[in-house]
Amino acid sequence: MADTPRYHYQPAVLKDVRITGGFWAQWQQAIREGSLPAILDYLKSTGRIDAIQCQWQPGDEPKPHIFWDSDVAKWVEAVAYSLQHHPDPVLEAEVDAIVGAYAAAQQPDGYINSYFVPVEPGMRWKNLRDWHELYCAGHLIEAAVAYAQATGKTKFLAVMRRYADSIDSLFGREAGKKRGYPGHEEIELALVRLAEYTGEQRYLDLAKFFVDERGAQPHYYTQEAIARGDDPNNWHWVTVENEVSRVDYSYNQSHAPVREHSDAVGHAVRAMYLYAGVADIAAAYGDNELKAACERIFDSASQRRMYVTGGLGSTASNEGFSEDYHLPNADAYAETCAAIAFIFYLQRMARFTGERKYVDYLERALYNAMLVGVSLDGTRFFYSSPLVVRRGATGEYSNFHGHRVGWFTCSCCPPNVARLVASLGQYLYQHNPHEIMVNLFAQSEADFELADGHVHLTQQTEYPWEGVMRFTLNLAAPQAFSLRLRIPDWCPAYQLTINGKSVEAANRDGYVRLQREWHDGDTITYELMMQPRRIYAHPAIAENQGRMVLAYGPLLYCLESADNDGALDSRIIQREAWIDPVFQPDLMGGIVTLQGHSLAYQADHGSLPLYQEHPYPTHGKHFTAVPFAYWDNRTEGDMQLWIRESE
Amino acid sequence: MADTPRYHYQPAVLKDVRITGGFWAQWQQAIREGSLPAILDYLKSTGRIDAIQCQWQPGDEPKPHIFWDSDVAKWVEAVAYSLQHHPDPVLEAEVDAIVGAYAAAQQPDGYINSYFVPVEPGMRWKNLRDWHELYCAGHLIEAAVAYAQATGKTKFLAVMRRYADSIDSLFGREAGKKRGYPGHEEIELALVRLAEYTGEQRYLDLAKFFVDERGAQPHYYTQEAIARGDDPNNWHWVTVENEVSRVDYSYNQSHAPVREHSDAVGHAVRAMYLYAGVADIAAAYGDNELKAACERIFDSASQRRMYVTGGLGSTASNEGFSEDYHLPNADAYAETCAAIAFIFYLQRMARFTGERKYVDYLERALYNAMLVGVSLDGTRFFYSSPLVVRRGATGEYSNFHGHRVGWFTCSCCPPNVARLVASLGQYLYQHNPHEIMVNLFAQSEADFELADGHVHLTQQTEYPWEGVMRFTLNLAAPQAFSLRLRIPDWCPAYQLTINGKSVEAANRDGYVRLQREWHDGDTITYELMMQPRRIYAHPAIAENQGRMVLAYGPLLYCLESADNDGALDSRIIQREAWIDPVFQPDLMGGIVTLQGHSLAYQADHGSLPLYQEHPYPTHGKHFTAVPFAYWDNRTEGDMQLWIRESE
Repeated sequence: MADTPRYHYQPAVLKDVRITGGFWAQWQQAIREGSLPAILDYLKSTGRIDAIQCQWQPGDEPKPHIFWDSDVAKWVEAVAYSLQHHPDPVLEAEVDAIVGAYAAAQQPDGYINSYFVPVEPGMRWKNLRDWHELYCAGHLIEAAVAYAQATGKTKFLAVMRRYADSIDSLFGREAGKKRGYPGHEEIELALVRLAEYTGEQRYLDLAKFFVDERGAQPHYYTQEAIARGDDPNNWHWVTVENEVSRVDYSYNQSHAPVREHSDAVGHAVRAMYLYAGVADIAAAYGDNELKAACERIFDSASQRRMYVTGGLGSTASNEGFSEDYHLPNADAYAETCAAIAFIFYLQRMARFTGERKYVDYLERALYNAMLVGVSLDGTRFFYSSPLVVRRGATGEYSNFHGHRVGWFTCSCCPPNVARLVASLGQYLYQHNPHEIMVNLFAQSEADFELADGHVHLTQQTEYPWEGVMRFTLNLAAPQAFSLRLRIPDWCPAYQLTINGKSVEAANRDGYVRLQREWHDGDTITYELMMQPRRIYAHPAIAENQGRMVLAYGPLLYCLESADNDGALDSRIIQREAWIDPVFQPDLMGGIVTLQGHSLAYQADHGSLPLYQEHPYPTHGKHFTAVPFAYWDNRTEGDMQLWIRESE
Repeated sequence: MADTPRYHYQPAVLKDVRITGGFWAQWQQAIREGSLPAILDYLKSTGRIDAIQCQWQPGDEPKPHIFWDSDVAKWVEAVAYSLQHHPDPVLEAEVDAIVGAYAAAQQPDGYINSYFVPVEPGMRWKNLRDWHELYCAGHLIEAAVAYAQATGKTKFLAVMRRYADSIDSLFGREAGKKRGYPGHEEIELALVRLAEYTGEQRYLDLAKFFVDERGAQPHYYTQEAIARGDDPNNWHWVTVENEVSRVDYSYNQSHAPVREHSDAVGHAVRAMYLYAGVADIAAAYGDNELKAACERIFDSASQRRMYVTGGLGSTASNEGFSEDYHLPNADAYAETCAAIAFIFYLQRMARFTGERKYVDYLERALYNAMLVGVSLDGTRFFYSSPLVVRRGATGEYSNFHGHRVGWFTCSCCPPNVARLVASLGQYLYQHNPHEIMVNLFAQSEADFELADGHVHLTQQTEYPWEGVMRFTLNLAAPQAFSLRLRIPDWCPAYQLTINGKSVEAANRDGYVRLQREWHDGDTITYELMMQPRRIYAHPAIAENQGRMVLAYGPLLYCLESADNDGALDSRIIQREAWIDPVFQPDLMGGIVTLQGHSLAYQADHGSLPLYQEHPYPTHGKHFTAVPFAYWDNRTEGDMQLWIRESE
C-alpha cells in the first residue's frame, strides 16, 4: 500500500507526546480518574457490557439498543489512549474481557453487533439509513486500532479486521454486493485508520466507496426501504418527541453526491464525521474535488452556522444545522459530540493544508464547545449545551440541557469526551520530514523523527492562563529544520527569544517560522500577548445584537450566578470598561477569571413598572466572569455568555 | 330588579353615540364593507349557517363543531351594532333568517346548540370543562340583546331568554341541579347584559352562581369527568399539536375560588371574559372581595404579563399566560380575542372605579393589540400576532401567524374584531347623573341624560394623528355638571380653552375636571401634547434589553420592510436621535409615520465574518416607522417592534 493518507503533515503519534502538567494534565486526570470508571459503571449497569455476549432473549430487560456497541467502543478507545502513558492493569483487564466477549460473539461470517445478532438477526444490513451497524463497526475498528497501538495486543484488531473484511465482502460495486453506505457516518474515517495501521489499501478503497456512493442516484435508501417493504418516507427514528415535520436526505448528508456538497446540513455529528473521512480520502487519493467540497463545508459551518464557542447544531429536531445565522442561545443544540467531530475534521484539514485557520477553529471548539461537555471531576456531561440559562419566574430552569448529568439514554457524548481528552497529545503538533508545527500550547514532551534525525521537544507553559511558552530542543547532533509556532487568530502581538536573545520573526501565514540549524539545548521563549477581548456577532444574529462575549486567550467567558447576583441577562458591561484577568488559584483548580465594573438593574424587580418611557436606572456592580467551559461546576444558577454592552 | 349592575358610571348606550368621521369612522367602514360580508361568506361556506338547522347526519361533511354557534352569534352582534347607525336591509334580512333558524331549531326544553343537538344529543351538559355549550349560549344571548337594542325586534331575544331560562332551571345549588360552570367563560357577562336589558334579577343571580361555584371543592370538573366515565386528566382538547405536557385547572381559571385569584393564569380569553363578568357581579352586588380579586388580576396582567401592545398570552400551548416577564416577541401568542376580552374587562373596571389607569390600558390594547388583528380593508385577520417577523436565511417566513388571513378553523377573532369596532361608540364616554367622562378621543356626537337634563356633546378631532379635540355642548338650558377629560398616561402636557379662553385645569386623578354651569354652544378645545416617545421594557424581559418601542399618542410604531430595507432586527436608533412625525395623506388611508436617522449594517451580510473582535461597522440610514396596527397591509416582509437603541 502507498503510504496513506498523503497528508502534507502527520500528527505526532500519541505514544510520542506526553502531556506533562498544567491545564490539560488536570483534565486528563479528571478523565482518567473520573470519566473512565464512571462510564464503565454505566456501561455495566445499563447492560451494555453484558449485551456484547448476544444472549438477549425476548422479554429480557434491558433490551440492547442499536448504538450500544459504539458506547463501549469509544470507552475502550479512551482507555487505550490513557494506557499509552498511564498503565492501569485493572482497566486493561476490563478491556481484555470486553475484547474476549466480542471475539466470542463474532459470527461465523465475521459480523458483530450486540443488537442485531440477538434481537433482529433477520434485519442485518436491511436499513443502513436509520440503523447504526456501520457506525458501530467504525467505532469498534477505531477502538481496536487504538488498543493495538497502546498495548501491542492484536486480538481485538484481528477480530475487527475480520469484521471489516466481512463488510468489504458485502459492500461494493461488484455484482451481488450492496451499494449502500452508512446512515450515520463514522466507518469512513475508521477504515482509513485501519488502512493506515495495517497498510491494507482495500480498507481505504472501501472508505472511498462509501464516500463516493453517498447521495448517488438511484438513491440507495429509497431502494433499500422499498426492498424491505417500508415507505421510504417512514424514518424509524422520527417520533413525536422529535417534532420533525419533514425529514429529507440532507439529514444524513445523502441529499446529493459528496462532491457537490456546499452547505453544512443535517445532523451535525454525522456531517463532521463524514467530512473528516472525506478529507482523509481526498488526501489519500489526491482528490481535489473532494478537497474543494471539504473547504466549502468549512466555510458554510464556520462562517454562517457555528456558535461562537465552536459549537455546531442549532436545532434539536435534527440535532444539527438549520439556516445561516440561525444560532439561538437558550435552545442551542451544540452537541458535545458535534464539537468533537468538528475537531476531528479540522485536524485533518490542518494536516492537509497547513493552514492556520483550521487550528484556530479547532482550538476554539476544543476549549469551549467540547470542554464545556464535561464536569471538572470528569463524571458529568452535557449532551447539548445552551449558551444562556435563565431561571423562570417560578425559580425553575426549563432548559432540558441546563445541567450536566452522569449518563444519557443515548450516551454518545461521555465516552467521546473521554477519548478526545485522553488523546489530546495528538493535536498539539504536526510535522513533515523538514518541519515541526506547534499548533496547540500545552505543557508536554514530544518526539519527532525528521529527515535528519530525532528531535525531542519540551514545551513548558501555563497556557491558557498565561501566554508564555518555553520550548527546549534536545538533539543528538545539530540539525536543520523549520520550527513553526502558531500565532493564534485572537493574538494581537507576540514576542520571541531564542536562547535568551530577542528575535524578530514575521507572521508567515499565521505562524512564526524559525528555519535554522538547531543545537541541543536550544531554548525558544514564545510569548503571546493575552488580554481580555470582546467578541461581537454578525448583524444577522438578532439575539446577540448589543451584546458581546468576553474572551481571554482561547477561552470564552460567561457570567454565572455563583459569582454574580441578579438577572445576568440584563447585566451591562460598558464598551470602555476595563477588564482585569485575575488568577484565582483556589477556584476550580486554579483559573483566570475576568473581573470589572458593570451596570445592573435594581434587584427588586417586582416594584419596577413593566414598561416605562425612560431607560430603567442602573447602578454599578462588580462582575466576575469564568471560562464558559467551567460553568455549572458549583451551585445551580443562571449563566450568560452573550453579555449586554452599552457605550 | 334593582338597577343592576351598580357601576359608578354607565357607558353611553350605542344608539346615543355616533362616530362621525376620522380614524374610527374609517375602521368602522372597513368592518361594515369588508368584514361583515366577508365573515358571512365564510359562515355560509364553512357550513356554520346551515348547521343551525341541526339537520346534520352521520357521514355528512362538514361536521359541525362545538364552537360554531359562537362565531355566528358574534357576527350577528356585530351586525346589530352596525345597524344601529347604518341601516342595511340586506344584512338585517340575513340576521332574521338566522334568528328564524335558531327559533326553529330550539328544542322543546329551550336548548340550542348546532353541534350537540344533531351530533351528540346524549352528551349535553356532560363536559362543561372542555365543551362550549355555555360559552355558545353566552354569545347567543349577547347577540340577542344587541339585536333587540338595535332593531327593536324581540324574536331572537325571546328565543334566547327561553334558552337562558332553561339553563337557569338546570344549574344552581338546589337539589337536582348541576353545580357546574363553563369551561370557557362568557355566559357570566352575557347574563348580566340580559339582566340589565330585561330587568330580570335571576339572570344576574345565575351569573353570580357561575362565578361563585368556579373552583369550589369538591371540584365539579373532576366529578363530572368521573360521572361520564372519563379520566379527569384526559382533557379533550389536548392533542399532540398543542404540545401541552401538563394541563391543570388554572387553564380555565378553576384552580381556586375566584375570590382567591391573584395571578392572571391560563387561557387569556377565558380569563378576561371571566373577570369582565366578575367585575359586573362585584358591581351589581357591591361585592368587595370580588372587586379586590379583579384588581389583583389587573396588577398581575398589566404589570407582569402583558405585551407592550396590550396583548395578552405568551404561549401557544395554553393560548394564554405563562410566567411573569415571559413575553417572547417572535412567538407571542397575543390573541386578538384576548385583547378584546381585556378591553371588555378594562371598560368594566373603569366604570366601576372611575380610575383613569384602566382606560389607559384599554386605549393601549385598542389601538395596538386589538387593531393589529384586522387588515385595512377589514377582510383579513390575525388570530395570534407576533411582535417581530424575520425572514429566515431561505427567505421564508417561519411564523405560522406572520400574516393575516381571511378565516381560521377556530375563527373566533374575525367576528370579535367586527363587534368590537362596530360598538366602539360605547367606549368613548361614561357618565353618571352629574358627570360626563370623556375616556377616548374620536370624532363623534353623543347624547346623555343627566340629572338636570339632556346634553348633546360633539367631539371633533383627527386623533390619534393629532392631539387636538374640540368639544361643543348643546343644551336646552344652562346646566351644571362636571365634564371630565382624560389625560392619557402617555401625555406629558396639555392645554385647554373654554370658549376661546385659556383655562388652567389641574390634573385630578388623571382627568381634567371642568365643573361649572354650561351653556348651549359652549366649546372646549383640549390639546394633548403629542410627540414621538420611546418605551422601554422591564429588565427582566431579556429579549427587549437594549431596545425600545417608538410611540406617538396611543399608537405604537414598528419598522416594516415595506419602508426599510435590510435586517430590521439589527437596525439601531440612537438615544438622542430626533424623530419626526410626518402625516402622509396617501399612505394607507392617511397616517402619521415616524421618521428619522438610524444606523444600519452593511446590506451584503454574506461577506461579513460570523464573529469579530470589534463592533460591526454601521452607516447612517433613514428609517420610517408605521403604526404597529397598520403593518402587513402592503408587501410581504419583516416587521420589528422592539428596535435596538444605542447611546
